[in-house]
Amino acid sequence: MGDLGAVLRRIDDIRDDLTALYKDLHAHPELSFAEHRTAAEIARRLEVLGLEVTTGVGRTGVVGVLRNGDGPTVLLRADFDALPVQEQTGLDYASAQRGTDPDGHDVPVMHACGHDMHVTCQLGALDLLVSAREQWSGTVVAVFQPAEEIGAGAQAMLDDGLLERFPRPDVCLGQHVFPFPAGTVGVISGPSMSAADGLKITMFGRGAHGSQPENAIDPVVMASATVLRLQTVVSREVSARDTAVVTVGSIRAGTKDNIIPDQAELRVNIRSFDEAVRERVIAAVKRIVRAEAIASGAEREPEFERLTDFPVLVNDPQATDRTTKALCEQLGAERVLALDPVTGSEDVGLFGTAAGVPTCYWFFGGVERGKYLAAREAGTLSRDVPSNHSPFFAPVVEPTLTTGVTAMATAALAWLDPR
Amino acid sequence: MGDLGAVLRRIDDIRDDLTALYKDLHAHPELSFAEHRTAAEIARRLEVLGLEVTTGVGRTGVVGVLRNGDGPTVLLRADFDALPVQEQTGLDYASAQRGTDPDGHDVPVMHACGHDMHVTCQLGALDLLVSAREQWSGTVVAVFQPAEEIGAGAQAMLDDGLLERFPRPDVCLGQHVFPFPAGTVGVISGPSMSAADGLKITMFGRGAHGSQPENAIDPVVMASATVLRLQTVVSREVSARDTAVVTVGSIRAGTKDNIIPDQAELRVNIRSFDEAVRERVIAAVKRIVRAEAIASGAEREPEFERLTDFPVLVNDPQATDRTTKALCEQLGAERVLALDPVTGSEDVGLFGTAAGVPTCYWFFGGVERGKYLAAREAGTLSRDVPSNHSPFFAPVVEPTLTTGVTAMATAALAWLDPR
Amino acid sequence: MGDLGAVLRRIDDIRDDLTALYKDLHAHPELSFAEHRTAAEIARRLEVLGLEVTTGVGRTGVVGVLRNGDGPTVLLRADFDALPVQEQTGLDYASAQRGTDPDGHDVPVMHACGHDMHVTCQLGALDLLVSAREQWSGTVVAVFQPAEEIGAGAQAMLDDGLLERFPRPDVCLGQHVFPFPAGTVGVISGPSMSAADGLKITMFGRGAHGSQPENAIDPVVMASATVLRLQTVVSREVSARDTAVVTVGSIRAGTKDNIIPDQAELRVNIRSFDEAVRERVIAAVKRIVRAEAIASGAEREPEFERLTDFPVLVNDPQATDRTTKALCEQLGAERVLALDPVTGSEDVGLFGTAAGVPTCYWFFGGVERGKYLAAREAGTLSRDVPSNHSPFFAPVVEPTLTTGVTAMATAALAWLDPR
Amino acid sequence: MGDLGAVLRRIDDIRDDLTALYKDLHAHPELSFAEHRTAAEIARRLEVLGLEVTTGVGRTGVVGVLRNGDGPTVLLRADFDALPVQEQTGLDYASAQRGTDPDGHDVPVMHACGHDMHVTCQLGALDLLVSAREQWSGTVVAVFQPAEEIGAGAQAMLDDGLLERFPRPDVCLGQHVFPFPAGTVGVISGPSMSAADGLKITMFGRGAHGSQPENAIDPVVMASATVLRLQTVVSREVSARDTAVVTVGSIRAGTKDNIIPDQAELRVNIRSFDEAVRERVIAAVKRIVRAEAIASGAEREPEFERLTDFPVLVNDPQATDRTTKALCEQLGAERVLALDPVTGSEDVGLFGTAAGVPTCYWFFGGVERGKYLAAREAGTLSRDVPSNHSPFFAPVVEPTLTTGVTAMATAALAWLDPR
Repeated sequence: MGDLGAVLRRIDDIRDDLTALYKDLHAHPELSFAEHRTAAEIARRLEVLGLEVTTGVGRTGVVGVLRNGDGPTVLLRADFDALPVQEQTGLDYASAQRGTDPDGHDVPVMHACGHDMHVTCQLGALDLLVSAREQWSGTVVAVFQPAEEIGAGAQAMLDDGLLERFPRPDVCLGQHVFPFPAGTVGVISGPSMSAADGLKITMFGRGAHGSQPENAIDPVVMASATVLRLQTVVSREVSARDTAVVTVGSIRAGTKDNIIPDQAELRVNIRSFDEAVRERVIAAVKRIVRAEAIASGAEREPEFERLTDFPVLVNDPQATDRTTKALCEQLGAERVLALDPVTGSEDVGLFGTAAGVPTCYWFFGGVERGKYLAAREAGTLSRDVPSNHSPFFAPVVEPTLTTGVTAMATAALAWLDPR
Repeated sequence: MGDLGAVLRRIDDIRDDLTALYKDLHAHPELSFAEHRTAAEIARRLEVLGLEVTTGVGRTGVVGVLRNGDGPTVLLRADFDALPVQEQTGLDYASAQRGTDPDGHDVPVMHACGHDMHVTCQLGALDLLVSAREQWSGTVVAVFQPAEEIGAGAQAMLDDGLLERFPRPDVCLGQHVFPFPAGTVGVISGPSMSAADGLKITMFGRGAHGSQPENAIDPVVMASATVLRLQTVVSREVSARDTAVVTVGSIRAGTKDNIIPDQAELRVNIRSFDEAVRERVIAAVKRIVRAEAIASGAEREPEFERLTDFPVLVNDPQATDRTTKALCEQLGAERVLALDPVTGSEDVGLFGTAAGVPTCYWFFGGVERGKYLAAREAGTLSRDVPSNHSPFFAPVVEPTLTTGVTAMATAALAWLDPR
Repeated sequence: MGDLGAVLRRIDDIRDDLTALYKDLHAHPELSFAEHRTAAEIARRLEVLGLEVTTGVGRTGVVGVLRNGDGPTVLLRADFDALPVQEQTGLDYASAQRGTDPDGHDVPVMHACGHDMHVTCQLGALDLLVSAREQWSGTVVAVFQPAEEIGAGAQAMLDDGLLERFPRPDVCLGQHVFPFPAGTVGVISGPSMSAADGLKITMFGRGAHGSQPENAIDPVVMASATVLRLQTVVSREVSARDTAVVTVGSIRAGTKDNIIPDQAELRVNIRSFDEAVRERVIAAVKRIVRAEAIASGAEREPEFERLTDFPVLVNDPQATDRTTKALCEQLGAERVLALDPVTGSEDVGLFGTAAGVPTCYWFFGGVERGKYLAAREAGTLSRDVPSNHSPFFAPVVEPTLTTGVTAMATAALAWLDPR
Repeated sequence: MGDLGAVLRRIDDIRDDLTALYKDLHAHPELSFAEHRTAAEIARRLEVLGLEVTTGVGRTGVVGVLRNGDGPTVLLRADFDALPVQEQTGLDYASAQRGTDPDGHDVPVMHACGHDMHVTCQLGALDLLVSAREQWSGTVVAVFQPAEEIGAGAQAMLDDGLLERFPRPDVCLGQHVFPFPAGTVGVISGPSMSAADGLKITMFGRGAHGSQPENAIDPVVMASATVLRLQTVVSREVSARDTAVVTVGSIRAGTKDNIIPDQAELRVNIRSFDEAVRERVIAAVKRIVRAEAIASGAEREPEFERLTDFPVLVNDPQATDRTTKALCEQLGAERVLALDPVTGSEDVGLFGTAAGVPTCYWFFGGVERGKYLAAREAGTLSRDVPSNHSPFFAPVVEPTLTTGVTAMATAALAWLDPR
């Protein structure tokens, strides 16, 4: 490889533009599969960079191909959808956008998971790679994936022929911004992110006037009892040696105080790192939901609809070694942390699994270092450092952005052939 | 009094028109204080009948005054707002209307409580009284009240000068359609309908990603535990000799399965027939809500907002005797039932209380007799006969309408002077 | 009738002896069907009074017959078993006795329901009747019933031939001490005391070491969830117009903190005044228990064992009128209160039902009047006036005892022929 | 070292005697600090072996000292108390013993944790060491510890001068029988067994007759709600990356179905492997208990009494290496398993901590190998292989006993000087 330092220094030329892009994306978040504005901006910029651009891959996905002679094919992946969260960061580029959720409700939208940073960093890294194309050979397939939050975008792109219509990768690389000190990256080898199963559960009661519960089968009580009982899955049915999380992220029933509604809806999210645990937990959740419906005397069985289905993300140990080594050389070993497995979930692993090639997916920090250290010292990390999906989630732009661009370009170059 | 029978027979001439009116109102329900179309139609018809008409009394209320010589002043009251319920009756005149609830949500709207029938019957009775004005003397104040469902309309009309701007009544009369056999009326003397207190309760947690509950204070669990614990108010804190109902008609928290939200909202409705019980129950509800927030480690106290505040409805025994006697004479004693107190609530009593005059408020049946008797025989009344506020609530038009018109006219004439 | 006043004045001669008897009985309570000492003392005193005495009627029951010429036969009934309660009254004649409960456990025993007072008053009344035998004619069958607390004693005496072996009654009379002012009696006509159904429920889990809940099916959680869910029977499934109480009086599972036991036991008591409500409630309790076992993944169905089965106690209206009239004449109308139905239960009604004759069962107060009035004024009745079955239940000896003796003798004489 | 094989072969001579001893101990279990018969038998046998014997060390503990020339001092520890469990093994040497628990209740007693096997194996190992005293030099301090189950025996022996009155050890060794294949041993390096905190919690309500819950503060409901709420500590407040178990092993309130008792007792056991988690969990348990008392309107704060207080057991890595190496040589490496940390707890670590010397504590299997493998194959391990504290816990005598004797003697010799 040639002068990698020179390649990476070009970040100084594009930093202002990337910063503006980041703030613009942050201010204009879009829900899963509705990322039309974002996709158009990505496509526009890829064309400016001279890549072969294809839009509408897996509904709103964008693929840019950068062919640069013989050599390996590296898939770089960034996701770009946002979340139905009401931003409360107070930033001057905070989102005031709204969107329509799958149930047709008007909801606030926020980049509460940092996908705006992922897009910005990947576009920045592509810029560096284009500028330095004399120094490497091979092919870069830049995948901009929609709908990661609902675990549907990666599969949609695969189903739309990603591996057939574009150069087949030898490795899949990606990164996620995370609440640890900006300027550092973190890597995990092996099982890295949990399986995540999202279930929408509808429990059926019988409505009546609020003064006549004896004529009703109260779905508010039914659903509430279910929520409490579901706590016992983790507390009683999962060994202390295993790991699982069962979260009821949403409960909804009724609109008025004096009308007993006829149904309730729960949205349940299940995390696990092991297939046997995963199956046991899902079975226990269904058993409890059905039994609580019986306890209420329900006349109709609860219904289960799958919302998401993320597998465990496994970082290939050898690929992770190779990528980590490059990151250490470039960033300094002291800025590359070894992390424990993370209970978040990702569908990025589907690309490598489908292609039969290794995946390496790392994290990069987004929290101002001084603030992070003070909070850790005070034992108030969970309070003072908002995590992903919080309405207060707000990575500091720098050195987060520079680190993300650098890490992505460095990792790509670690797999491309030097010239 | 002259020939009452002749007066009442005029119903045969107006029945078709009233039926069309009823179906039109049913198909066009409007939420509390948004009943603009309904109010306009009422005002138009009152003007056709020749009454002095005032609109906008208590926001959307309508008052028609029919002066007919010396004599008592009788206040007739019909309420005309509808409910945020998705109609499921399958009627050809079923509602497909939508409205905006107090939280700004777009919701379905339905006349699920029969106020469309109340309006129709009161307009029919006024028609009879106008036609028969030679046979009685006195003044009729026809009050068409908005926003009964939220317990706000009667107070709004009083606050807007109802008793000062219009003739002051000697008695207040009104009626409600109810799920017993059409063709009959039911009366209760003394405490007749329960006090109803509506509370909107907001419980505050702390949001986080669904995979990191340790960083959250989970409001879904907090609210669910509260719902279950609230069941103990009636089961453990109210004597079997007393009567109370505590219904959580709505629970709402979160939008996605994998985000732990930061708050939950409960809407609680409390029914009681006795002030000491009412106070004990409300205090117990608040105590439990606060304690469950503590149990969750909440960092912010729950907030309570009052939604409704219905007093106990007390039918004056003497006024009820007098009215009942007239109904028995007119309808036949076998069609006048003595009912037990009802756990529904009404703000109609506020008129009489404010004026310091007696109230008599009765019920009229809306269920096809054969169907009612069969369901009672089978012990399936609660299943087969939809009660008020059910999405299936649908009075049979006849003989419900004729009975309601007849009862209202008869009751009014019982209090007006004969000529 | 002759000089009733003279008859009743004899109470002054026996008051000290009765007081000593009462305190002795209070200090020596015995559990249901183990009342050997009490039965022996009753039999001894009946013999002293000259009655025909039979012991062992229905295991530990005692019957005394007082034949006094032609005339009606009046059955007087007093119950005499005590409860497994640790007395905390601090009285100098408080119980320190222990007994063995049906499960073989050693438990404290206390006359926490006042049966010691019932026995004392009935023996006192019999003494008066014997002393005054010149003034009346007829037959008195004095029934001293065991095991009322478990709802088994009345049936046991009937099964043992009470109606065949002794003179058949024309009326059944009895009384119960209650927490209202001493010196007064209270009567109810019609349904007076609730049906009571006692169920012992065993729920089966699977035991394991406390650190390995994943190997257990935790019966502590199962039973606790069941208790909470059972609260919804009254709060959600019983109309506000009906009356029911569901009490879980006992929950027991496990012995150590670090062993998950393999089963849990609940003891549930159900009160109702109406057969349809009773059936609905019992069915709901069983449905919930079974469903909660399913929710826990139990491998064995819960088991239900009936502990008690008290019917509704119905006071015959005519018999109640006649008795009340006599009590008013004797005590003064101001000392005879009309009470509302009571949610306690009694098996005394079985005698009248079996004999096909009317029952009249009244209450007499046991609380010092000033204390009662002060507590009512302060709204602290439930706190300051211990009710039956409380470890603090302690009737004041006087005027409770004199009133109970007087009421019983008066009621008996109201049904016997005067001479 | 001389001929270790010859030393160990002597097991063939004593196996029948040890088997008889084991079955006798199993049939005669004794509760913590009441192990008089067991202690006497141990002392008798130590004297026969020629050790210096001291009884009554830490109430019922026994210490035997075997001095055999210069060299290291090795502390061998076996615990010997049993549990209040009703044995259900059906073995011909099953226990029918009963004992008195700390609350004065008569309870069944069983060696459900295998301490009978620990005693037998340690006595067997001592026999081998005595027989082979020509082959090693040093001192063996054989500690037979009472009251391990309540976490009190080790501390009691230390408080009674164990380290001052007897030779001070250079290392502490011990072993526990566990539900894996008999014939194998398992070792863990570092944190090996969890901290365990036992709490007895008393919640105070107000008693009343079962028909009058409005006069009570129902402790059954209060305690049940607490149990359910406690499930949320692990499910919501402990990170998936951390480990904790909160078990309510016992819930007790009331004796009769129709008396609402005035208090309830919970016994809670908490496991953790990290001090910060431990503190957070204990704080959360107390917060929930107090809040649920408030939710019930309790008039008295709950009371907390500490039952047990086990620290984390940490196996010294170097000492574990040395011991493991010896076990591998003797048993064959394929019979020495590396285990994951275990959620059970032990107070054995207190000896090494107090003496400032390393501890090595290993496990030896007690399940017939074929049965174990079949259950693992079928995925029914948790059902078919009873774990410690189960009423079905029953190690197969062989090869469990031979392995335990061999392992203990081998480990001791690994630390003593060879001759």
